Amino acid sequence: MIQVAVLGYGTVGSGVVEVIEKNKEEINKKSGEELNIKYILDLRDFPGDPYEDKVVHDVNQILDDPEVKIICETMGGLKPAYDFTKRALLSGKSVCTSNKELVAAHGPELIQIAHENKCNYLFEASVGGGIPIIRPLNYSLTAEKIDAITGILNGTTNYILSKMEKEGAGFEEVLKEAQEKGYAERNPEADVEGYDACRKIAILSSLMCGKNVKYEDIYTEGITKITATDFIYAHAMGKTIKLLAQSKEEDGNFYAMVAPFMISRDHPLYMVNDVFNAVCVHGNMLGDSMYYGRGAGKLPTASAVVSDVVDCARHIGKVIMCFWDAEDVKLTGIDEASRRFFVRVSAEKEREAIAVFESVRVVEADVSGEFAFVTDVMTEKEFNKKAEAVGIISRIRIEG
Amino acid sequence: MIQVAVLGYGTVGSGVVEVIEKNKEEINKKSGEELNIKYILDLRDFPGDPYEDKVVHDVNQILDDPEVKIICETMGGLKPAYDFTKRALLSGKSVCTSNKELVAAHGPELIQIAHENKCNYLFEASVGGGIPIIRPLNYSLTAEKIDAITGILNGTTNYILSKMEKEGAGFEEVLKEAQEKGYAERNPEADVEGYDACRKIAILSSLMCGKNVKYEDIYTEGITKITATDFIYAHAMGKTIKLLAQSKEEDGNFYAMVAPFMISRDHPLYMVNDVFNAVCVHGNMLGDSMYYGRGAGKLPTASAVVSDVVDCARHIGKVIMCFWDAEDVKLTGIDEASRRFFVRVSAEKEREAIAVFESVRVVEADVSGEFAFVTDVMTEKEFNKKAEAVGIISRIRIEG
Repeated sequence: MIQVAVLGYGTVGSGVVEVIEKNKEEINKKSGEELNIKYILDLRDFPGDPYEDKVVHDVNQILDDPEVKIICETMGGLKPAYDFTKRALLSGKSVCTSNKELVAAHGPELIQIAHENKCNYLFEASVGGGIPIIRPLNYSLTAEKIDAITGILNGTTNYILSKMEKEGAGFEEVLKEAQEKGYAERNPEADVEGYDACRKIAILSSLMCGKNVKYEDIYTEGITKITATDFIYAHAMGKTIKLLAQSKEEDGNFYAMVAPFMISRDHPLYMVNDVFNAVCVHGNMLGDSMYYGRGAGKLPTASAVVSDVVDCARHIGKVIMCFWDAEDVKLTGIDEASRRFFVRVSAEKEREAIAVFESVRVVEADVSGEFAFVTDVMTEKEFNKKAEAVGIISRIRIEG
Repeated sequence: MIQVAVLGYGTVGSGVVEVIEKNKEEINKKSGEELNIKYILDLRDFPGDPYEDKVVHDVNQILDDPEVKIICETMGGLKPAYDFTKRALLSGKSVCTSNKELVAAHGPELIQIAHENKCNYLFEASVGGGIPIIRPLNYSLTAEKIDAITGILNGTTNYILSKMEKEGAGFEEVLKEAQEKGYAERNPEADVEGYDACRKIAILSSLMCGKNVKYEDIYTEGITKITATDFIYAHAMGKTIKLLAQSKEEDGNFYAMVAPFMISRDHPLYMVNDVFNAVCVHGNMLGDSMYYGRGAGKLPTASAVVSDVVDCARHIGKVIMCFWDAEDVKLTGIDEASRRFFVRVSAEKEREAIAVFESVRVVEADVSGEFAFVTDVMTEKEFNKKAEAVGIISRIRIEG
């Protein structure tokens, strides 16, 4: 029997307990041994909960128990999760986490500590909720040189953008509705400003290049400036607007960013709607592959944590390969990245805009008082210079 | 250094050699040791080929060489692949294969032989070409009780159906064009009659339930009867037609089948077009997840074979878990499966059809001389009885 502890009995933590209980037959078979939840760490008590007798308040009770081999860290945040994780790994206990902040901030250090102590630090649930993406990157696409990853990695913003598209509604209105339904937090900043997606693409980018991509270095733009009018234009062009998190390696340059993009109907991410997430991975042999599913939610996320527990159970005392060195990757500034842009200017600036941007494709849509167009491919730097010269209403990058 | 042999220097076999050469830096890093192709088995010689000195004609040279640890079987077919594979595994050499016929026919026996001899029989490339699907099922979705798998598993038929949809063309016409372009074989039976998809869903179904699903037991219907007119109706209903391979567990009953289905715009498989493949997996915690990519082709398929080689290289002398027992699964006949059907009858049978099928939803489309409708949910048995009583032109099953 393998003893497991869960740190944090909130949404994901209680989901982990539920998944291990509900699917115990499958899970024990695949683990090769029976799993047992010995402790649940939480500050609160849970009178009446079927697991109330497992709840402890002192992490040392768990860390000092040599029987505990695997710990699920579902607390979130850096403090005290970082300290608890480090101490667990130093004592040879594997840790499975859904904590993207911690993985993005201290991933390579914690992986190294784990490996030095013949245990593992796994984080399938930190990106894309229940979608298997970390393991496919680490174990499946091993014959590929991966040169691009593009994902819809945040369910809240994807829900908002899908709703705006479907209903022609404005951002604020849909955000409010999402908050009422519990799809968005009261303080929605981490989601709508792209910070959550930024942590996740930092993790995926690091695995893509085997070195450390610092999330602080990633250009991040949220969806708060996207309007109902933008969707009118997107429709007219047969496109939609998605918050994409992407990283690309091109000629030795490494780009990473999070921003709203217009994408076409034939893009594999076009049909990813509502709270679903998806990740497109481009490899030099395979071309595009895509992984799609529920990017959040109690049970999907817990299922990913438990799949890590199974992997740890099968590898007690053994290191599971993971290439993520501490060496920082130097990202190329997005100023140098080239693409097309969708641009809106006021109607009276039509002539000026055409003069400055030269070759433009006009976008016809049912919007008055404006002139809208798509530029040629140009660098962000070049674009910004021209946009400033003209004085534009707004712009959205175009993917592909 | 780990010595590798490739059996069969055809499309996939030469792709394996190319992938191992082109991505050797990544592959050797992930294997933990350098891979070297020592032999290539083929009946032919390849004068001028950069690997011509590795080509041998006698399999015993490979099987008797204790240095060879991993064999890629890319010959296809049962003879002599079955014999070669068995002998390789008996001598403790791991085998990585793209040969779906062999895996579907002898999977559990070969896996057992491998495990008894402390080596592995891996077959990621046998389903979905380069799409990681076997490994996600075996290693990632380990916390799930998987109750349904639905896939577009054959690129040729998906190309044909996509073309028919886009161009309003007939089956024969598009097949001919696909043959000219090399997307369909001269003898297209294995693809268009669904036999290829049947082998693949047999493999996925076996992994889903951990026992053996015999491909001979799977109801299989191809796309040869699908017409341009069917697509006119599909469009009118906001649907498309796809050849789906699916298996489902419901209340202890296990269904598996391959047949053309109508699916709606909101189905994750709707946007899978041309030669792309995709597999939807439904688990009791995660809900739907989907895996999408190139289901065939030299390099994508070879990439999957080489990912198996990397996995074998990391596990020399160790068994990689795979649950696929020899015990046969008793499939429930599809007679008992329930769904809606899209039905076409001649115009004069409208009244009779309504009388027999009772509650029908009429489908309006620009087709003359016919009456078309969608039935209520009913079993296949019930449907067939009614359809026979009325005398219908054709029917297509509706998914979801």
